[in-house]
Amino acid sequence: MAEATIDTVTSVPVAVVGAGPAGLMLAHRLGRAGVGTVVVDTRTRHGISTTQRAGILEADAARDLVETGVSDRVLREGHEHEGIELRFGGRPHRIDFKDLVGASVWLYPQTDVFTDLADARDRDGGTVLYGIRDTEVLDVTTDAPRVRCTAPDGTRHEIRARYVVGADGSRSMCRDLVPEERRVRYGKEYPFAWFGIMAEAPPSAAELVYAHSEHGFALISRRTDRVQRMYFQCAPDESVDAWPDDRIWETLQARVAGEDGFRLTEGPVLERTVLRFRSFVQEPMRWGSLALAGDAAHTVPPTGARGLNLALHDAKVLAHVLLRALGGEGDTALDDYQPRALRRIWRAQNFSSWMTRLLHTEPGGTPFDLRRRLGELENVAGTRAGRTYLAEQYTGWPTGA
Amino acid sequence: MAEATIDTVTSVPVAVVGAGPAGLMLAHRLGRAGVGTVVVDTRTRHGISTTQRAGILEADAARDLVETGVSDRVLREGHEHEGIELRFGGRPHRIDFKDLVGASVWLYPQTDVFTDLADARDRDGGTVLYGIRDTEVLDVTTDAPRVRCTAPDGTRHEIRARYVVGADGSRSMCRDLVPEERRVRYGKEYPFAWFGIMAEAPPSAAELVYAHSEHGFALISRRTDRVQRMYFQCAPDESVDAWPDDRIWETLQARVAGEDGFRLTEGPVLERTVLRFRSFVQEPMRWGSLALAGDAAHTVPPTGARGLNLALHDAKVLAHVLLRALGGEGDTALDDYQPRALRRIWRAQNFSSWMTRLLHTEPGGTPFDLRRRLGELENVAGTRAGRTYLAEQYTGWPTGA
Repeated sequence: MAEATIDTVTSVPVAVVGAGPAGLMLAHRLGRAGVGTVVVDTRTRHGISTTQRAGILEADAARDLVETGVSDRVLREGHEHEGIELRFGGRPHRIDFKDLVGASVWLYPQTDVFTDLADARDRDGGTVLYGIRDTEVLDVTTDAPRVRCTAPDGTRHEIRARYVVGADGSRSMCRDLVPEERRVRYGKEYPFAWFGIMAEAPPSAAELVYAHSEHGFALISRRTDRVQRMYFQCAPDESVDAWPDDRIWETLQARVAGEDGFRLTEGPVLERTVLRFRSFVQEPMRWGSLALAGDAAHTVPPTGARGLNLALHDAKVLAHVLLRALGGEGDTALDDYQPRALRRIWRAQNFSSWMTRLLHTEPGGTPFDLRRRLGELENVAGTRAGRTYLAEQYTGWPTGA
Repeated sequence: MAEATIDTVTSVPVAVVGAGPAGLMLAHRLGRAGVGTVVVDTRTRHGISTTQRAGILEADAARDLVETGVSDRVLREGHEHEGIELRFGGRPHRIDFKDLVGASVWLYPQTDVFTDLADARDRDGGTVLYGIRDTEVLDVTTDAPRVRCTAPDGTRHEIRARYVVGADGSRSMCRDLVPEERRVRYGKEYPFAWFGIMAEAPPSAAELVYAHSEHGFALISRRTDRVQRMYFQCAPDESVDAWPDDRIWETLQARVAGEDGFRLTEGPVLERTVLRFRSFVQEPMRWGSLALAGDAAHTVPPTGARGLNLALHDAKVLAHVLLRALGGEGDTALDDYQPRALRRIWRAQNFSSWMTRLLHTEPGGTPFDLRRRLGELENVAGTRAGRTYLAEQYTGWPTGA
């Protein structure tokens, strides 16, 4: 597109592509330190705030929302969970995070995290352009990168920045700016997906229930007192049309059934979606004046509840190095970003992949693997060492670790 | 074979096929309780005592050797190890068993365990027929099973028993006595084997070193002050002829190399063997008057040092139920054998398979899996929860657990 089409030019230290938790939290952290940003996203604000995503925040991430001044709503409306329940062999096994590792997590949906962050941007006078199109990111190998896009009203924007952050999610275009011959993409596909529902019913359990049965995996989560979030393992190409309410409840009940008589409280299914997932990492996470954060650089299966937390961790580490870079250190400060972020990312990749393999039923899996996995579940849930190993990974590691 | 060919008939409560650790330890335990056995093995005593096998005993198993009166030689000639070293990323990481789980293991080769057990049989007047051939196990679904075999001197034996124990190792013929339609065999093959050597050299390390490198796995163990046992990952069809001493040492040195400058002490290679391995379990472990123990019922990859320990655990549990059965309870006592043994077996199967996958380099493994595994190794070795998870499994679980 020719220069002539630009209507508005904005100069700002950091341009952020993507208004998800990683992008907005980064903008918030930079804003608190007096560094201006413009955040752009192809999605509308309404679209982001109504797309069901993750629901679990590490305690550190919840505390950061409060302590950095985003909002203290998580403390009022979130639910602190001190454990989860693993169900297998028809029996419940509690993983008591508080007792095992002195930690807890917060049930606080990503949609609420987004709303808090978006409201904080408004309150603090930060610029976020939603619903944009025709995004271009230019000159990332120079010290004057630019982002161009068209706002919903047709205005053509150019944002001139010192650094650009690609926080544009799992279908990132920013990550493609790292030349093919200079990047490595690590990935793993899984032969199953999640069938996710929102149901109008009272909660079935106080804490999250992760169920492994011979029929496959199920996860019982919650949203409010009257609306619940649940998932069950399905084929990646499953069609939501094939699943009337009755069939959904029958499937979920069979996967959580046990000798304790546990039953889900049923109700009308308000929403149904098939969620495909994969494991993915792109390296490098930084290219010239561009840094990638969150799902743009790495995605994880949802089983370990790591995705949102990793994104917020990236934002924390990246804000720190960007402030150093802009404060006089220059590009060398950015060299610290990838090593500090990657260590946690690969641990989380391993944990997410392990939890996924541990709890799902692999189509075509051998009888040996099925039995071995029951041995693994028994060892994980049946020994303090195993429970601690899971708890420490589920509740996260210290920042930078 | 017709009845007419039998030269010697012996009647005894329990006939045992296989004079490895499981079979001899069972005979020893039964003998201590006044129950007679005849043990038979196709191998010669010399053959068994000179075949290099496992080298690590759980503390409980070492204590059992002493307390059940086999021998206290393990305490005098064994080496108590309070940890192992994991090497990866060019760095050593100690797993301190004593500190983590208050346990230790004993370096005491299976050949020594065998010698102690065989000597104990002699001392206690137990009958063991080595070097037999033409073994037949008959009538196991009756209460009068028999074992027939030909001794090296040509004498044809028949052992009439109330129970027969199949402890005849990983190529067991006894397990085939469970009809095909009534048994399940669980198995997993690995795309690699171990190249094992005995080398004449001083020890290179005080404790066992488990090394993961991009070139593959290596294990540095020891036998005596002047002879050492080492292994490195190789292809399952590797030929020992292709490996002169120089190539062996070069390979081993590359796999343990690190920034700490660690080097193996080299010396003449006395023995070289390619060890194939797999994961295997047969269920049921009991059929009529027949019970399977040790490798006959289950084999594990050697990585987790579980095989010998599982065999001794089987012998312990089986001796207990056989004494109850013979003491008046009858066959119903044997119903407890499989459930009590299997729980540990599947945990050990999982641990052995996990340690193997964790430390080896899979031919054709994806870059994602290689990097994920480094994240796993970092998490296992780099957190107390991870180290404890490994330590508890490596040092074993309480009897019956």
